[in-house]
Amino acid sequence: MDTIEKLTEVFKEFPGIGERQAKRFVYFLMSKNPAYTENFSLLMKDLKKEIYQCNDCFRFFINKNKSKICEICSNPNTDSETLMVVEKDSDLESVRKSRVYHGRYFVLGGLVPIVEKNTKNMVRINELVDQIKTQAKLGLKEIILAFSLNPQGDHTDFYVRNQIKEMTKTHDIKISSLGRGLSTGTELEYSDNDTIKNALKNRQ
Amino acid sequence: MDTIEKLTEVFKEFPGIGERQAKRFVYFLMSKNPAYTENFSLLMKDLKKEIYQCNDCFRFFINKNKSKICEICSNPNTDSETLMVVEKDSDLESVRKSRVYHGRYFVLGGLVPIVEKNTKNMVRINELVDQIKTQAKLGLKEIILAFSLNPQGDHTDFYVRNQIKEMTKTHDIKISSLGRGLSTGTELEYSDNDTIKNALKNRQ
Amino acid sequence: MDTIEKLTEVFKEFPGIGERQAKRFVYFLMSKNPAYTENFSLLMKDLKKEIYQCNDCFRFFINKNKSKICEICSNPNTDSETLMVVEKDSDLESVRKSRVYHGRYFVLGGLVPIVEKNTKNMVRINELVDQIKTQAKLGLKEIILAFSLNPQGDHTDFYVRNQIKEMTKTHDIKISSLGRGLSTGTELEYSDNDTIKNALKNRQ
Amino acid sequence: MDTIEKLTEVFKEFPGIGERQAKRFVYFLMSKNPAYTENFSLLMKDLKKEIYQCNDCFRFFINKNKSKICEICSNPNTDSETLMVVEKDSDLESVRKSRVYHGRYFVLGGLVPIVEKNTKNMVRINELVDQIKTQAKLGLKEIILAFSLNPQGDHTDFYVRNQIKEMTKTHDIKISSLGRGLSTGTELEYSDNDTIKNALKNRQ
Repeated sequence: MDTIEKLTEVFKEFPGIGERQAKRFVYFLMSKNPAYTENFSLLMKDLKKEIYQCNDCFRFFINKNKSKICEICSNPNTDSETLMVVEKDSDLESVRKSRVYHGRYFVLGGLVPIVEKNTKNMVRINELVDQIKTQAKLGLKEIILAFSLNPQGDHTDFYVRNQIKEMTKTHDIKISSLGRGLSTGTELEYSDNDTIKNALKNRQ
Repeated sequence: MDTIEKLTEVFKEFPGIGERQAKRFVYFLMSKNPAYTENFSLLMKDLKKEIYQCNDCFRFFINKNKSKICEICSNPNTDSETLMVVEKDSDLESVRKSRVYHGRYFVLGGLVPIVEKNTKNMVRINELVDQIKTQAKLGLKEIILAFSLNPQGDHTDFYVRNQIKEMTKTHDIKISSLGRGLSTGTELEYSDNDTIKNALKNRQ
Repeated sequence: MDTIEKLTEVFKEFPGIGERQAKRFVYFLMSKNPAYTENFSLLMKDLKKEIYQCNDCFRFFINKNKSKICEICSNPNTDSETLMVVEKDSDLESVRKSRVYHGRYFVLGGLVPIVEKNTKNMVRINELVDQIKTQAKLGLKEIILAFSLNPQGDHTDFYVRNQIKEMTKTHDIKISSLGRGLSTGTELEYSDNDTIKNALKNRQ
Repeated sequence: MDTIEKLTEVFKEFPGIGERQAKRFVYFLMSKNPAYTENFSLLMKDLKKEIYQCNDCFRFFINKNKSKICEICSNPNTDSETLMVVEKDSDLESVRKSRVYHGRYFVLGGLVPIVEKNTKNMVRINELVDQIKTQAKLGLKEIILAFSLNPQGDHTDFYVRNQIKEMTKTHDIKISSLGRGLSTGTELEYSDNDTIKNALKNRQ
């Protein structure tokens, strides 16, 4: 494989990028001057240097002062009574950008496949249990499970509830899941049965 | 205009049909034998003969015994305690097919445009008020507003609540709207702020 | 099946229409007043009364004076030296609308499937041969095969050439096919090998 | 701007990448280990080291032995009688992959905008003229203009023909453009007038 092919392979790993677009990226880089790719490489190096994974919530964060805890987890204004469990960093960012939630987060690191035996190794369930123990002493009152609404998300919701059931009972912590019903743009005429069922059940 | 053009114009009124597909429909009819179009016409005639608009809920229904009330409104098993207000017949059919609601319906006949003065003439608000009065005597306890989740649907929800406020207070009838949150397939990463807000508010 | 279901079945036969849109069409018809569907039926009846299939080119045409030959075939200004063979009426209309061809047409009535034994019964190949015989006496000099550029179109081109080979040789009639190359909007970067090959071969 | 934002900006320049996907790329890089990004940077460095722009055809090529001429231009088997002028490297690669053309290439470096005064500076027209002069002595007989089939491509075809007219006349070099007509998948029914016109004109 020559360099063009090797780079094409790298780009093919990028989320949502196929062979054709990967190739176009390589041609794009070819047409740029060396300063461009040098700056690009430098930024990636900076990213790797600055990025840490928070010891509490496991999100990636820019960390210039080498702390082990991210700015959300270490912020005294963060509401310690709620902890939202999400699948991945981009879900967390999406919720954060909506500015309607002010509590703590926990990044599980994936969804739990429906047919899977070694589940424990696939997501950070042990780390979640540890984090709940720690937060329980600091006033945690509610855990919000915030997974995407599809079979694997549902299965993960079920799995996590089961794994933390005992402990949350002991510490009197409530478990909730994101509400279900009509989302923006939903047209009743084209809604599936589950959405209608949830919208009706959760009417208010 | 010749017959082909006239028929093209008719098909262009069909929901979701543009010039090109309307023309294709006409060519399709041309290629069919006369028996086909005769049967088609006969079925439309039958439809018009058999279809009545229910005096109670205003949905269209097949009515072979010339009753003025549809089979939902006249069914003694229909739950008289709830009345769901929908925009149009196809919304009603969608809810009905989900088999999770067993109460009465009311077809408003449209959504209320946000900028509009003569609203009264555009939707069946007077008829709704009359129907609520009648149903109040028969045990109605809750009105469920079930409009699509978009600005016009929201405005219609607001408008209808306002118009029936007094009367429902008098008769102690609750008004609710369909629940909001994640709908089937929603991925958190790509959700808009309103959906996240609703999902969080309605967590359970 | 009730009338709604029967009509839904009729609409499902329309080109490009699935279950859901077929149902919407029925609801659309329900909401229209009887005069609308009566007019619709009348137009279809008119269409069937007025539409004849031309004895020469086999296209459907509006025929108020009960002639057996369409206005293209009977028009003395039509160029009798060229005959374009197309798959279906809508292809003919598309070429006609482009106003760049002024000769005669022949509607084959379909494409020839690649794997098929009883080909003769599927398209009007005998009728085409007859028509060529007739036109040969009236000055026909070129037959243009104008099929869509896909495997079945290619196969039909091959099949028709084969079937009319002898006769066109006898009468010294040229057979041509539509030119191939870049079509409007083609971007070289995204072109398939065949298109590039044809574009190069047919450069000028 | 922090490093995440800076990298997002870099990715937004990539062809076909918007804000959202640029952000996803950054999160993707975050989740990868440092070895991954180091390898990525190294490959880009290699690319820049290995890539030269050919002095003859101006395409980018991998060049390990520091020659100034690419492997197509320096290959004695390349047909010196034809020179294909393309807009950009990815067009050239697309033609090359089709294996139907064996002559020389010239990358113009862009299309000529329809409304533009300083055209000379936008594309390599002077370099093309120089290259033609050189190739004329080496047996060049035909120049093939191979631009995408859209208004700007047409305009570039017209512009280049005009600029090289005199010189090609002097050296008795033919100018051709890629053939036009039906391209793979074209359905006659949905073809625009220009495509039908070209297909008819170029029938064979």
